[in-house]
Amino acid sequence: MASDLFSQILNSAPGSLLAKQLAIPQPETLRRYRPGEPPLAGSLLIGGTGRVVEPLRAALAEDYDLVADNLGGRWADSFGGLVFDATGITEPAQLRGLYEFFTPLQRNLGPSARLVVVGTTPDEAASTDERIAQRALEGFTRSLGKELRRGATVALVYLSPAAKPAATGLESTLRFILSGKSAYVDAQVFYVGAADSTPPADWDKPLAGKVGIVTGAARGIGATIAEVFARDGARVVAIDIENAASALEETAAKVGGTALALDVTAADAVDKITEHLREHYDGHADILVNNAGITRDKLLANMDDARWDSVVAVNLLAPQRLTEGLVANGSIGDSGRIIGLSSMAGIAGNRGQTNYATTKAGMIGLTQALAPGLAEKGITINAVAPGFIETAMTAAIPLATREVGRRLNSLYQGGKPVDVAETIAYFASPASNAVTGNVIRVCGQAMLGA
Amino acid sequence: MASDLFSQILNSAPGSLLAKQLAIPQPETLRRYRPGEPPLAGSLLIGGTGRVVEPLRAALAEDYDLVADNLGGRWADSFGGLVFDATGITEPAQLRGLYEFFTPLQRNLGPSARLVVVGTTPDEAASTDERIAQRALEGFTRSLGKELRRGATVALVYLSPAAKPAATGLESTLRFILSGKSAYVDAQVFYVGAADSTPPADWDKPLAGKVGIVTGAARGIGATIAEVFARDGARVVAIDIENAASALEETAAKVGGTALALDVTAADAVDKITEHLREHYDGHADILVNNAGITRDKLLANMDDARWDSVVAVNLLAPQRLTEGLVANGSIGDSGRIIGLSSMAGIAGNRGQTNYATTKAGMIGLTQALAPGLAEKGITINAVAPGFIETAMTAAIPLATREVGRRLNSLYQGGKPVDVAETIAYFASPASNAVTGNVIRVCGQAMLGA
Repeated sequence: MASDLFSQILNSAPGSLLAKQLAIPQPETLRRYRPGEPPLAGSLLIGGTGRVVEPLRAALAEDYDLVADNLGGRWADSFGGLVFDATGITEPAQLRGLYEFFTPLQRNLGPSARLVVVGTTPDEAASTDERIAQRALEGFTRSLGKELRRGATVALVYLSPAAKPAATGLESTLRFILSGKSAYVDAQVFYVGAADSTPPADWDKPLAGKVGIVTGAARGIGATIAEVFARDGARVVAIDIENAASALEETAAKVGGTALALDVTAADAVDKITEHLREHYDGHADILVNNAGITRDKLLANMDDARWDSVVAVNLLAPQRLTEGLVANGSIGDSGRIIGLSSMAGIAGNRGQTNYATTKAGMIGLTQALAPGLAEKGITINAVAPGFIETAMTAAIPLATREVGRRLNSLYQGGKPVDVAETIAYFASPASNAVTGNVIRVCGQAMLGA
Repeated sequence: MASDLFSQILNSAPGSLLAKQLAIPQPETLRRYRPGEPPLAGSLLIGGTGRVVEPLRAALAEDYDLVADNLGGRWADSFGGLVFDATGITEPAQLRGLYEFFTPLQRNLGPSARLVVVGTTPDEAASTDERIAQRALEGFTRSLGKELRRGATVALVYLSPAAKPAATGLESTLRFILSGKSAYVDAQVFYVGAADSTPPADWDKPLAGKVGIVTGAARGIGATIAEVFARDGARVVAIDIENAASALEETAAKVGGTALALDVTAADAVDKITEHLREHYDGHADILVNNAGITRDKLLANMDDARWDSVVAVNLLAPQRLTEGLVANGSIGDSGRIIGLSSMAGIAGNRGQTNYATTKAGMIGLTQALAPGLAEKGITINAVAPGFIETAMTAAIPLATREVGRRLNSLYQGGKPVDVAETIAYFASPASNAVTGNVIRVCGQAMLGA
């Protein structure tokens, strides 16, 4: 889906030249998550003078190799992570603190290093001075993402000023970023709300005891989501259409879950899922991933009823109906997690995909529209927007075009399905209860956008 | 400034190949505004079933060649403009109306045609269904922008549902889009508030009787802003540094305005401007354009105090101080207009520009932070973010690189300084009183972004 965006661009006049003669430098092998390995490939420095620096040090001290903040020093270390607490910046002149913290450390970054700036949600800032300064952070981190090399990434996390000083709601986001789970998430902006949070018994099994529903789970990204959920301790309801029943059974068997062959657009889809939950899971699920989606590309001039209607039905109407239906009938109760698949096309638009992009922008709308109401039940809803992800579909793109598509980002490579799945699992975690209404691109900081 | 963004990308591994061998197709010559000429190069069709379709027809009937809405018909016409009122769309299934309206008309678009979708501001929608559907419109228009050819553009305008049915506050935005003034503004999203508006006596002299302050006016985009302001009837205070005094005098003489040699970062800048206004304009100005800006590029690893501090001082601290100071001391009174220059780098980030991008994201913050408070006085504040604009600076880029940079957008060409100036003049118009807190890219729908 997102691959189409890249191939369309590459088929444009400027892009096709790229495709012809791209040199192929070796991109860095990204460090990805493996249970039991240290979260970072080096030590972690947490600096800055805001309200979260001390709570973060306390929260991360046990699992990270924390080094003392000593900005004047010469670092023998190769850092695995740098966190700058920018919540103390309350006016634009203080933005200098970013430069003062990061500049002396730039030559000491290890491979796949993680850089994080934690700020205050601009819209909730206490003064105009603070709001301006906090909003400015985004220009800094997005630029820094384009300077980093060797698989290093940067993230901006905005924390609600209503969060208590302990800021436990921040921890799941920081642990996601400061790990191999975020290998392909670069230069994104995370919003964390005010809620406090209780850490899971085991950060390597954050979904222990949870039941997750994944639509479109027979193959590709959906199947990988099921695997990551199972790895993290969840039981999985794998859903896909009847035509994909045998692949679906394979997924379910592989993750020790159950398979439910079902067209998500069917009028009785909610009832069938509810019945399945009653039969296998005491009638209850914790997580719904609206992953199923289709493309029916055509220029708008040549669009037809079937293409328009089917894409809207599968990609937008069904996710809305499943979400609202399963919440309304109590199948997904308090503390539920809803995650939708948006797309770069939904953000930037894409030639030949007016139908698809409409639904993927609609998925962003679904996330933002339902978040406030669901919050009353402690349910969160978030979306991911994949960039160029290496799948069977992208493997079918001609080599030269594919080579260009996968390089048009700050990491100079395509992502893997697991990168999308890890981001979804982060949203799905009970510890991410303060994270709702987010749309996170899993794109290696793709150069393309709106 | 924005050109740096493109050149950085082109100097990346994938980009440099583009630069080497770009074929050079002839892009469409964009139709730009000329006083006295018809606003569009063909007739205008206004369709849809929302609350603004009839008021818009009434407002535009006199100056446009309006044709009746007859979707079933075969069009002999080559349309200059299509407006679809999507405010009647209150649930996702109704998005089909977009396809039904636009598809049969796609083969009847004239050169530089203007397509507009008018929706309801998603965050203010009355129901979750409506909010989802309205947010989805953006995926449609951004995709359509990438399909249009021959200089045609598309825009999405969100109108507050609190606007009265007459929606007079919408008119200045529609007239801007439905003219040559928006030639290089493509696939952008405009937000129009609830305020009613009084049309100017003459839409070709919307700034008649107004006084506009333009910083950085000696050359380039700033000088062009001064010219467009003067053309639209305003008297201009042209400001630039002492070093540029002779070019500044030329600008002032050309537009029949006054020159004020001044460093915007000086502690007494507000006082000096205030004094100048007292001397020449009865102590009053209507418009402030914070156009002055500098770049001091360096990778963050090599950043120094002087580069960081000077860019922040000129690009962010000075605009904030001028805006707050001139409003506070009454030099800019009720119904004032503030416009800032952001940048693509402020949105997407840019390698080598952590300092610059921080300030240009900060300019977005300034716009959003001050808009609510200024609204109480009827003052609006908005920003423009130029893409690849043909200036003396971009002319200095090596040919091949320049060729690529200017083609990486849906219009396959660079914009002109006048395109930026026209957008600023639209914000500056008294008729744009319902338009505040907007950030509009003048970029031909650049493929690059965040």
